Amino acid sequence: MTADELRKLLEEVHSGNQTIDKALEKLQDLPFKDLGFAKIDNHRELRTGYPEIIFGAGKTPQQVRDIVAFMLTKDVNILATRATREMYDEVLTISPDAEYHEMARAITVRKKKPELTDTHIAVITAGTSDMPVAEEAAVTAEIFGNKVDRLFDVGIAGIHRLYSNLERIRKARVVVVIAGMEGALPSLVGGLVDKPVIAVPTSVGYGANFGGLAALLGMLTSCASGVSVVNIDNGFGAGYMASMINKL
Amino acid sequence: MTADELRKLLEEVHSGNQTIDKALEKLQDLPFKDLGFAKIDNHRELRTGYPEIIFGAGKTPQQVRDIVAFMLTKDVNILATRATREMYDEVLTISPDAEYHEMARAITVRKKKPELTDTHIAVITAGTSDMPVAEEAAVTAEIFGNKVDRLFDVGIAGIHRLYSNLERIRKARVVVVIAGMEGALPSLVGGLVDKPVIAVPTSVGYGANFGGLAALLGMLTSCASGVSVVNIDNGFGAGYMASMINKL
Amino acid sequence: MTADELRKLLEEVHSGNQTIDKALEKLQDLPFKDLGFAKIDNHRELRTGYPEIIFGAGKTPQQVRDIVAFMLTKDVNILATRATREMYDEVLTISPDAEYHEMARAITVRKKKPELTDTHIAVITAGTSDMPVAEEAAVTAEIFGNKVDRLFDVGIAGIHRLYSNLERIRKARVVVVIAGMEGALPSLVGGLVDKPVIAVPTSVGYGANFGGLAALLGMLTSCASGVSVVNIDNGFGAGYMASMINKL
Amino acid sequence: MTADELRKLLEEVHSGNQTIDKALEKLQDLPFKDLGFAKIDNHRELRTGYPEIIFGAGKTPQQVRDIVAFMLTKDVNILATRATREMYDEVLTISPDAEYHEMARAITVRKKKPELTDTHIAVITAGTSDMPVAEEAAVTAEIFGNKVDRLFDVGIAGIHRLYSNLERIRKARVVVVIAGMEGALPSLVGGLVDKPVIAVPTSVGYGANFGGLAALLGMLTSCASGVSVVNIDNGFGAGYMASMINKL
Amino acid sequence: MTADELRKLLEEVHSGNQTIDKALEKLQDLPFKDLGFAKIDNHRELRTGYPEIIFGAGKTPQQVRDIVAFMLTKDVNILATRATREMYDEVLTISPDAEYHEMARAITVRKKKPELTDTHIAVITAGTSDMPVAEEAAVTAEIFGNKVDRLFDVGIAGIHRLYSNLERIRKARVVVVIAGMEGALPSLVGGLVDKPVIAVPTSVGYGANFGGLAALLGMLTSCASGVSVVNIDNGFGAGYMASMINKL
Amino acid sequence: MTADELRKLLEEVHSGNQTIDKALEKLQDLPFKDLGFAKIDNHRELRTGYPEIIFGAGKTPQQVRDIVAFMLTKDVNILATRATREMYDEVLTISPDAEYHEMARAITVRKKKPELTDTHIAVITAGTSDMPVAEEAAVTAEIFGNKVDRLFDVGIAGIHRLYSNLERIRKARVVVVIAGMEGALPSLVGGLVDKPVIAVPTSVGYGANFGGLAALLGMLTSCASGVSVVNIDNGFGAGYMASMINKL
Amino acid sequence: MTADELRKLLEEVHSGNQTIDKALEKLQDLPFKDLGFAKIDNHRELRTGYPEIIFGAGKTPQQVRDIVAFMLTKDVNILATRATREMYDEVLTISPDAEYHEMARAITVRKKKPELTDTHIAVITAGTSDMPVAEEAAVTAEIFGNKVDRLFDVGIAGIHRLYSNLERIRKARVVVVIAGMEGALPSLVGGLVDKPVIAVPTSVGYGANFGGLAALLGMLTSCASGVSVVNIDNGFGAGYMASMINKL
Amino acid sequence: MTADELRKLLEEVHSGNQTIDKALEKLQDLPFKDLGFAKIDNHRELRTGYPEIIFGAGKTPQQVRDIVAFMLTKDVNILATRATREMYDEVLTISPDAEYHEMARAITVRKKKPELTDTHIAVITAGTSDMPVAEEAAVTAEIFGNKVDRLFDVGIAGIHRLYSNLERIRKARVVVVIAGMEGALPSLVGGLVDKPVIAVPTSVGYGANFGGLAALLGMLTSCASGVSVVNIDNGFGAGYMASMINKL
Repeated sequence: MTADELRKLLEEVHSGNQTIDKALEKLQDLPFKDLGFAKIDNHRELRTGYPEIIFGAGKTPQQVRDIVAFMLTKDVNILATRATREMYDEVLTISPDAEYHEMARAITVRKKKPELTDTHIAVITAGTSDMPVAEEAAVTAEIFGNKVDRLFDVGIAGIHRLYSNLERIRKARVVVVIAGMEGALPSLVGGLVDKPVIAVPTSVGYGANFGGLAALLGMLTSCASGVSVVNIDNGFGAGYMASMINKL
Repeated sequence: MTADELRKLLEEVHSGNQTIDKALEKLQDLPFKDLGFAKIDNHRELRTGYPEIIFGAGKTPQQVRDIVAFMLTKDVNILATRATREMYDEVLTISPDAEYHEMARAITVRKKKPELTDTHIAVITAGTSDMPVAEEAAVTAEIFGNKVDRLFDVGIAGIHRLYSNLERIRKARVVVVIAGMEGALPSLVGGLVDKPVIAVPTSVGYGANFGGLAALLGMLTSCASGVSVVNIDNGFGAGYMASMINKL
Repeated sequence: MTADELRKLLEEVHSGNQTIDKALEKLQDLPFKDLGFAKIDNHRELRTGYPEIIFGAGKTPQQVRDIVAFMLTKDVNILATRATREMYDEVLTISPDAEYHEMARAITVRKKKPELTDTHIAVITAGTSDMPVAEEAAVTAEIFGNKVDRLFDVGIAGIHRLYSNLERIRKARVVVVIAGMEGALPSLVGGLVDKPVIAVPTSVGYGANFGGLAALLGMLTSCASGVSVVNIDNGFGAGYMASMINKL
Repeated sequence: MTADELRKLLEEVHSGNQTIDKALEKLQDLPFKDLGFAKIDNHRELRTGYPEIIFGAGKTPQQVRDIVAFMLTKDVNILATRATREMYDEVLTISPDAEYHEMARAITVRKKKPELTDTHIAVITAGTSDMPVAEEAAVTAEIFGNKVDRLFDVGIAGIHRLYSNLERIRKARVVVVIAGMEGALPSLVGGLVDKPVIAVPTSVGYGANFGGLAALLGMLTSCASGVSVVNIDNGFGAGYMASMINKL
Repeated sequence: MTADELRKLLEEVHSGNQTIDKALEKLQDLPFKDLGFAKIDNHRELRTGYPEIIFGAGKTPQQVRDIVAFMLTKDVNILATRATREMYDEVLTISPDAEYHEMARAITVRKKKPELTDTHIAVITAGTSDMPVAEEAAVTAEIFGNKVDRLFDVGIAGIHRLYSNLERIRKARVVVVIAGMEGALPSLVGGLVDKPVIAVPTSVGYGANFGGLAALLGMLTSCASGVSVVNIDNGFGAGYMASMINKL
Repeated sequence: MTADELRKLLEEVHSGNQTIDKALEKLQDLPFKDLGFAKIDNHRELRTGYPEIIFGAGKTPQQVRDIVAFMLTKDVNILATRATREMYDEVLTISPDAEYHEMARAITVRKKKPELTDTHIAVITAGTSDMPVAEEAAVTAEIFGNKVDRLFDVGIAGIHRLYSNLERIRKARVVVVIAGMEGALPSLVGGLVDKPVIAVPTSVGYGANFGGLAALLGMLTSCASGVSVVNIDNGFGAGYMASMINKL
Repeated sequence: MTADELRKLLEEVHSGNQTIDKALEKLQDLPFKDLGFAKIDNHRELRTGYPEIIFGAGKTPQQVRDIVAFMLTKDVNILATRATREMYDEVLTISPDAEYHEMARAITVRKKKPELTDTHIAVITAGTSDMPVAEEAAVTAEIFGNKVDRLFDVGIAGIHRLYSNLERIRKARVVVVIAGMEGALPSLVGGLVDKPVIAVPTSVGYGANFGGLAALLGMLTSCASGVSVVNIDNGFGAGYMASMINKL
Repeated sequence: MTADELRKLLEEVHSGNQTIDKALEKLQDLPFKDLGFAKIDNHRELRTGYPEIIFGAGKTPQQVRDIVAFMLTKDVNILATRATREMYDEVLTISPDAEYHEMARAITVRKKKPELTDTHIAVITAGTSDMPVAEEAAVTAEIFGNKVDRLFDVGIAGIHRLYSNLERIRKARVVVVIAGMEGALPSLVGGLVDKPVIAVPTSVGYGANFGGLAALLGMLTSCASGVSVVNIDNGFGAGYMASMINKL
C-alpha cells in the first residue's frame, strides 16, 4: 500500500465513504503490506514472471501435489526442484501439462510464457557427472524467462574444449560454472571472462572430496576475481542468482 | 499500537479531530511500532531492569566509551562484556562510578538498583580455570537483578564436592554449569537436579579439546535431559538465559 | 531419608523396637537415599507427572515391549521416542491403549491424565521438513502435562508468517524454535520475543549443511540473547527442557 | 590483436612495409593476444577503468612499492588490499598522492577519475566489528567507479534498523551483506529485497564460530534465493563481484 | 635365537658337529628370529594362550573359512571379530564346534582351555545400545583366558546403578568402560576407582555425536587420570589391552 | 608451430607464395596449435601407448558403452575404472574381447599389445581389504605397458612379511604402497627402500578412521622422505603416476 | 565405613554406649564415606605414594604457590605440570627444595622417597622434538615411584635404533610411546613387544598434522593390538596410566 | 652381509681362522646389516650423494650446531631445513663455509660437489607468496645434485605466463608445482605436461583456506592424472621426491 493509497483511505474515512471497521481491517493488514513481505513478494513474482518454487526434498508426493494444486489457482508458472518421478506422477493427476525434467530432477508447469531475455546465461560443467546440477540450474533459469547456453564437460582435463568455446562463453551476460572434484574450473573461467561467475561445487568425486567439501573450499578460495559461490549441488540457487543478474 | 489505539485514531480522523497529514505520519511509522522492534525492546528493558549490553570484543576503548556516554543519557544499567582494562579506563573518564570485574572481563555501571529476585541462579564450574566464564555469567545475571550462588571447582575429579553441595544446588531455580575439557559436569548435574541446566563449554584444555569443541559436543550429546547449551566460553549468554528463566 | 527419620530409626534401635539387622539393612540402603539418585528420581517422576522415557533407537521391538511391560506395573505415563511402527505393534500386544505418533516417531501410553499447565509452550518450525522434530518436541511436552501451541513453516523465506503470529508466540512462556539449513530462525525469534528460546537444529538440508552442522553452529553463535541449543534433531530434549521451564 | 589488425600486418609484410623480423616479433607475441590472457585483460582494465590489484598479504613493503612503481608507468588506478601502514609508507616515497584507507587496510592511487555509475551498490553489515571487511568491499567498488551506499550495524539484534532502511537498500542494484557470528543477515536481506545479494562471512565471533566457519556454512545453506557467497573476510572479492554486476 | 643358542651353533660348526650348509640355513633364517617378528609372535601366542585373531570386516565368508582352516592345523584358539552369520555358517562346515557370539559379532573356536586368571576384568557400559561393543570386548578377553565381570547400562542417567556396583567394579584389576553419546562414564569411573581404565567410545547417538566423535573427544580430554582410549566401537582392542594388563 | 615455421609462412606471404587469406586462417588457428592442448595430448597417447581412460562412477552403462564405441574407432587400448558388471555387460555387446577385472572394478579392451617395460612397479598393500584399490592400481599400470609385482597383506601387523620381501620390493623402480587404518606402511617402506613411493590411503577401517582421513593425514605427515600421496582409494591415480615414473 | 563398623555403631546405640546425637552425626557423614569419594581418594594417595597433582595451565604463579603451600601441610609429594619458571620462582619462596624440570615443564617437591618399583616403564619417542612430552611422562612416573627407562629419537626414520634397543624395550613392564607427525611408532612397537603400549600423539609437525590430529587419528586406528591412546601432548596422562599399570 | 660373506665367516669358524667370540660379535650385529637399516642407508647416502637432512623446527640452535658438528666428521653434504638465522649463526662458528638460504629457511654445507644431473626439475609456483616453499624445494633438489629451473608466479590469475613457459616446463623430467589458495595450478599443469607432477599445497591464503586445507583437498581430488601430493608447505618433501624421480 503506497502513501497515496493510504492517504486516499484516510480521506474516505474522513468523508465517511469508508466505515471505520472496514478501514481498520485494511490497516491491520497493513504491516505486511508496508513491509512488503509475502504480498509484495507475490507482486514481484507476478510482475517479473518468477514462478513459485517448491523444494521437493523431504516432502511426500501428496504434499507436492497439494501445493501445486493450490498454486494452480494462481496465474503463475510452477517449479518443483529435487522432485522424484513419484511426485511427478501425483502432479500429473491434477495438471496434465506438467513436465518432468529427469536429469534436473525438476517438475515444471508453464501457465504463461515468459518474455525471453535478450541476453543469456551460460551454464557450463567440468564433467559429465555434473550434468544433473547443471540441468537444475538451466531449468530454473529458463522458467524465469532466461535464454540458456549449455556447455558441458569442458573441465581442465579437456581444457582445449574450454578454449575453443571461449568466445561463446564470453557472449553470455553471466556464467554459471559447475564442477566437482577439486572444483578448479570457476577459477579458470573467472580469469578468462569479464562476466560475473556463479560457481557451484558438486559432490561428484570420492575420498578427500568429502562430499563436495574440496570443491567448495577451492571455489571459495579462488584466486580469480568475480567469482561467488552457492551451496554444494545447488543448481537451483545458481540458476536463480544468474537470472537475477541477467535480468537487471 | 494496539487495535484499540488504531480504532481511536481512525475515529479522530473521521471526526476531524486529527488531520489527515498527522494521521498519515503516524500510520507510516506504524509498521515498526506494530512489529515492535526497537521500541518494544526498549520498553522491555526499562520494564524488566535489563540493561543495555555492549559486546566489547573488536571495539576500541573510544568506541566503548562513546556507547557508554550515549547510554548514560538513558536511565539504565550498563554492562560491557569482553572488556579490557583499557576500555574501563576510558569509561572511567565519563562515568566515575563504573566498576571493572577483572575476572569476568566486564564493565558495569549501575544507575538504579534492580529489585532482587526471590529465587536464585546457581553458577557452578568444573575447574578453577573456568572461573572467568563463570564470573561473566554471574555478573550478567546480577546486573539483571538475580541473586547468584557461585560454586566453583566441583568437577568430576572432585565429585564429592559436588555431592556435598547438592542440596545447595537444588535450591536454585536454574543452574548454569560451566566446564572445559570433556565437559561432563552438566550431564552429571542434569541427572541429579530437577531444574533447567544451562551448559557452557569452555575452551579450557588442550590437544583433542580443539578449542572447546570436545566440551561442546559432549554437552550437546548429553544423555541427561533438561540440559541446553550455549556457545563456547559464552558466560554472558548463559547468564542472560538463566536470568530470563529465573524471572519468569 | 531425612535427619528426623534417621533419628527415629536410631531411637527405635536404642529402645529395641527395631532389630539391629533390620536397621543395618535400612542404613546400608542409605547412601542412595541420602544422595537421592534413583529413588528420589523415581519420587520426582511420580510427584511431577513426568513419565519414564524410552529411547527407542538401537533397541529391538521386543526390548521396547519388555521395558513397557515393566513400566506398566508402575502407575506412570510412558513415552518412547525414536520408535518405529514395529515397536508400536509389539507394544500394542501388551498395552492396547498405546498411541503411535507417526510424525513424531513416538509411542505414548497414558495411564493417568496430567493436570494441564496454565501457561503454554510454543513449538515453531522454519520449514515443513522440520515437522518430525517439532512433533517429537510437542508430544514430549504434552505427555508432561504442558499445553503446546504448534506453529509450523514460518521460516525466513516466509517471514510475514512469523510476524503475523508474533503476538501468539509472545503469549507462550517458553518457545522451542526448530530449523534446518542455516538455522537462522532462533536468532530472529530471540530478537523479537522476551521469552527463553530453546533452539533445535535439524539435519534438513544438503551440501554444506553437513548433517545439521551448519544450523547447529549458526544457533550456537547466534547474536540474539536468550537462546540456548540442544542436539541436532533432538526434539525430545527441547520438549523436556521447555517443560521444565514452563513448569517452574 | 584483432583479425583486422592481423590482416593489416600481413598486408604490410606482403607489401614490404614491414620487415619479416619485426612481424615475426609481433606474431610470436600473438598467442597470448589471440587467447586474450594478460593483454586483453589489460585492455579490459583500461577500457573499464578497473585498476590493477595487489594482494598485500605475505609481501614485503619493498615488494609492494616495486609493484606500484611498475604500475605507475601505466595509466591505471592502483589498489593494494591487505596492506599495512608500513607498505603505505614505502609507497608514499614513490607516489605522494597515494591514499591509505586504514579501516579497509587498503592503499589506492588514483591516476584517473573513473566515470561514476548511475546505479549504486549497497554495502551493509550486521555489526560494527564487520566494518573493516565492509570498507574493503566499499573501497574496492569505489575505485572501480561504483557509487556505494554504506549501511553498518543493522544485524538481527537491531532488526528495526534494517527495516527502517529497507527502501534505501532496495534502491541499490546489488547488495553486499557482511556478517560474522551466525551470519544470518544475508538470508534475511535475500528474503526482503529483489536484488542479487553477495554475502561475505566474517571471522567476527568466538567459540563455535571457528574463525568464520559458522557464518560461512550459514550463508551457503541459506534458505533465501538470490544469495551467493565469497570467502571469509573477503571484502575485496565481494566489492569486485558487485562492481561486475553493477556495471553490466 | 638367544646368544647362547647362537654360541652353541658356532661351536657345533667349529667342531664339525654341524655342517656349514645347515648352519647357513639356520642363520639365513636368523634375522626374523633375532628380530622376533612372526615366529616370536607365534611363540608368544602359544606361550600365553593368545589365539590368532581374524578381522572379519571386508572379508568374504570363504576367506574367513580358509583362514580358519589354516589355523585349525595349529593348536590355537581362534577368534574372528566383525564376523557375520554367513561367515559363521561357512566356518561351521569345517569346524563344527565353532561358536557364534551374536551380539559380539564374533566367532570363536576353542581348541584348548586357557588357564583362567585369578583376577578379572570389569566390562561396563553406559547404555544398553553399547552392549555389542561390550560383548566384543568381553568375548575377546575371555578367549585370552581372562575372567570377565559384565556390568551393563550404568551410565550417568542411572548413576545410582554405578554407585551400587562400585565395590564390584573396584574388585576388578582393570576396567573397560564403554559409552556413546557424550562418553562421560570413563571420566566418572576413572575418578572413583584406583585401577587402569580403558575407555571405548561408541558410535551410539545422533546429530552432534558425529559417528562417535563426541564420545571420542570427551574421553581423550577426560579430566580424570588413569584413562586411556581406543578407537570408536573398538571392543576388541579394549578387550585385548585389558587382557594384556590383567595378565601382567 | 615453431618460430622457423612461422618465419617460413611470413616469407611466403612476403613473396606472394601464400595468400593473405590462407595465412590469416593458419594464424588464427595458431593459439591452439601453439599451446598444443587436445591435439598434443592425443599425439602423446598414441605415441606412448597410454589408453584413453573412462571414469565409470556416475555414468550409466549406456554412457560407458557409447564412449567405448567411440574409442573403438581409434586404435587405442581402453580402460574404464569404477566400472560395474552392468557396464561390462553393455560393453560386451559391442566389444566381445573386453575383459572385466572384478576386484579392480575395471574394464579393459586391449587393441594392441604395449611393449613391456624392463623395469617394474611394486604394488603392495598393508591388508587384504586394500586389495581392490591395489588391483585398480595394478590393472592401470599394466594396460600402460608396465610390469607389476603384486605383494599383498604385508602391513605392520605382519612386518616380517615385509622384511622377507624387502629385496623383492627394492628391485622395483617405483613402489605403490596402499594402506587403510593408520596408513603407516608407506612411512615404513619409505624408510627402507631407495625408490619413489606413491602412497594410497584407503577407506578401510572404522571409527576414527573417518572414511580414510586417518590414513590420508598419516601419509601426508609421514616422517619418511620420498613419499607422495594420492586421493583416498585412488588406485588408478597411483597406477598412472607410477607408470609415468617407471617409463621416464 | 564398613558393614562391620556400622553394625558395631548400632550395637553401641542399642546398648547405650553411644548417644543418639553422636551416632546421628557420624551417620550423616556416612554417604561420602560410604561412597568413598574424596576421603578414600586421599587414603589411596597416602597409601600408594601418589602425590597430589596440580595442573598449572591457566593458573597464576600465586595460585600455584598457594596450592603448594596448602599441600605442604600434608605429608605428600607434590607435582605441578604445565608449570612455568615464574610459577617455580613463586613456589621456591615457600619450598626451597622444590625442583624445576625445564624440559618437562614440571615442578616437583619430594617430601618422602617413594619405594621404587622392581619393574620399570619405558618411555620412548619418535623424534627429538617429542622430548618435552616424554619428560613430562617420565617425571610423572618417577614421582609415583616408578623406575623409568628413557629412549628418545627412535622413530621410523631411524628404525634401526628401535631394533637395536628392542630387548631393552621388552624388559619394561609397560611402554609409553610418544610420536608426532604421522604417529606410526606405537603401531610398530605394539607389533613388536608383548607389553601394554600407551600411545601419546604430539603436536609436533605442521600442515596436515593439524595440531596433532594426524598422529591422534593414526594411533587410534592402529592395526596393532595392545595400544591405547591419551590426549595430544598429554605426557602426564601417559605417565600416570603407565604407573597404574606398572604398580598393579 | 651376503650369503657368500656369511658362508665365508662360517668356514673361518670351522677352520679355526676366526674365534667364536669374534664371529658371535659379527653375527649379533647381523640383523641390522641383513635388514640394512641405518648402515645401508648410510651407504646409500654416500653412494648417491644425498646429504643427511636436519629438520630444524623445534630444535635449539645449539642442537642444530651439534648435529652439524657430528656430521662434519663424515664426508657428506649437509642440509638443515626450517632453520632460523640463529641456527645459522651457531653453525657458522664450526663451519665457516656454511650457507644460509634466507627465503628457503635452509642451511647447507657443501663438502663435496655432487655430479649434476643431465635432466632437470622444474619448480613452479602459483604466486609470489609461495616462494619460500619453492626455494626449500629447489635448495633441497640442488644439494642432491639436481639442476633446477625456477618459474615463479605463474598461477591461474596470470595463466598466459604459464602458457608462454610451457615448452620450458615440458623440458623438465619432473615438475614440482606449488600453490596456495584453491591450489588449482597442479591440475592445470598435470593436464598440459607429460611428466610426473609433485604438488605442494601451501598455507598461503585466509578464511576458508583453513591453513592450506583447501589447497590440499583440491590437489588430492585433482581431475588430472599424474599428480601426487605432499604435505602443506612441505617444499623439502617435494624436492626430495623430485630428486628421487629425476635420478632414476
